[in-house]
Amino acid sequence: MRGGAGPARLVPFGSIAAVVRAVEEGAADEAVVPIENSLEGAVTHTADLLIHHTDLRIRMEVVLPIHHCLLLQPDVRVEEVQVVYSHPQALAQCRGYLARHLSGAAPVASLSTAGAVRDMQGSDRPAAAISSRRAAEISGVAVADGNIEDRGNNKTRFVVLAVGDAPRTGRDKTSICFDFSEDAAGTLHGALGEFATRGINMIRVESRPDKRSLGRYVFLIDIEGHREDAVVGAALARIEARATMFKVLGSYPRAKVLDSGTRPL
Amino acid sequence: MRGGAGPARLVPFGSIAAVVRAVEEGAADEAVVPIENSLEGAVTHTADLLIHHTDLRIRMEVVLPIHHCLLLQPDVRVEEVQVVYSHPQALAQCRGYLARHLSGAAPVASLSTAGAVRDMQGSDRPAAAISSRRAAEISGVAVADGNIEDRGNNKTRFVVLAVGDAPRTGRDKTSICFDFSEDAAGTLHGALGEFATRGINMIRVESRPDKRSLGRYVFLIDIEGHREDAVVGAALARIEARATMFKVLGSYPRAKVLDSGTRPL
Repeated sequence: MRGGAGPARLVPFGSIAAVVRAVEEGAADEAVVPIENSLEGAVTHTADLLIHHTDLRIRMEVVLPIHHCLLLQPDVRVEEVQVVYSHPQALAQCRGYLARHLSGAAPVASLSTAGAVRDMQGSDRPAAAISSRRAAEISGVAVADGNIEDRGNNKTRFVVLAVGDAPRTGRDKTSICFDFSEDAAGTLHGALGEFATRGINMIRVESRPDKRSLGRYVFLIDIEGHREDAVVGAALARIEARATMFKVLGSYPRAKVLDSGTRPL
Repeated sequence: MRGGAGPARLVPFGSIAAVVRAVEEGAADEAVVPIENSLEGAVTHTADLLIHHTDLRIRMEVVLPIHHCLLLQPDVRVEEVQVVYSHPQALAQCRGYLARHLSGAAPVASLSTAGAVRDMQGSDRPAAAISSRRAAEISGVAVADGNIEDRGNNKTRFVVLAVGDAPRTGRDKTSICFDFSEDAAGTLHGALGEFATRGINMIRVESRPDKRSLGRYVFLIDIEGHREDAVVGAALARIEARATMFKVLGSYPRAKVLDSGTRPL
């Protein structure tokens, strides 16, 4: 993305961890990482990275529709395909299409939809891949069929990470994560009450294992408002006072596309 | 598991959906499915199945430690291995071991740790697999190394699904899921208040996308107590009255092993 003046230069990285490291080390200005999908839910790898492994802040959010394409090896026809490579989530999202058009082919997991194109190219059996139109272009592979996903409402929310978050715009959102110090019933209810009593809308609540003990969790919460809004700042201070671990992951403008879908909790 | 008198006969199925279907169709009495791992969090496939696709109830929970083993093709030595097959989660959980002992080998995703053994056996390059001791035994493959996971606290909580849940024991747990009808701030806080004001401990809170619109969620909550306990029944009735969708996934005895780890929320 953009560091200052001039257009942004896009640089691909092989994993979520690698793109985050590039920003931490100054090799890139911003990292764009997936955080949530409308069908599959939280991208847990990104959540865990934000909780445990980086001090980068969320500066922006972007919502993109996800479309899957069917790619074929050169000179292979759909009815000849014996294996279909893709990331397990993409295979799952195209299950109906595969049953209708490739029922004789075995689904095989790839580490990513980009990796699926390489797996298809390296296969010694007649193969197909489910990947993006962009990956097909980059690899010089023809797209045999487009929009093959079973459900149309497949969207992914990405966040842009950088050294600092975004200034106040008046239409903002704040993401936090925290862990409790108290060992008592009603602690989560009490924390959420800091928002409810102040009329602050919660937009999203996720929990992740704390990775030390089964049955202990870290909470990730998105609320409306900027951390510099007085009312938000007051609520966050009260939650921080009760928490063992507390991090503001960032305040940033709300993506407009979310206005119709999101419902306050 | 057991349907009535006599020891249980264990029958393996190829997927979570298949084992659940077997119970629904009467081909098996109970289904044992993973629901939560101490490192990776919720098993979202199981959560979505409970929310959307089955009326089976949770009758029991079982917590098992997870250990990974290194398997090798016959006559292949560790230093010769070029590819290591496993499920991406298992590859991730053994990342440190792989870096120390198999740094020259490429990790390749399999659809399951059981499938990794077959992928290894079918590989035309010197290959290893990360799988369970049980899968090694079933396949007649020798275990080259055991307990190769990077972190010792790797545990998975399984639930046993059946047509009905369990009777009251006095040391129970109840799992529910619900969705809100109200479009107002504080709705989740209000729902959790039904537990807090009655002194009912919440043990777990998860959210899953409702799959219709990005930004709308279904909540999965575990509480202490049985749905037939008067105080629990009263709280559940109040939550059901506010919800668009509400399901009791089951009441069942708490696994003893969780007593030390779990912390009320």
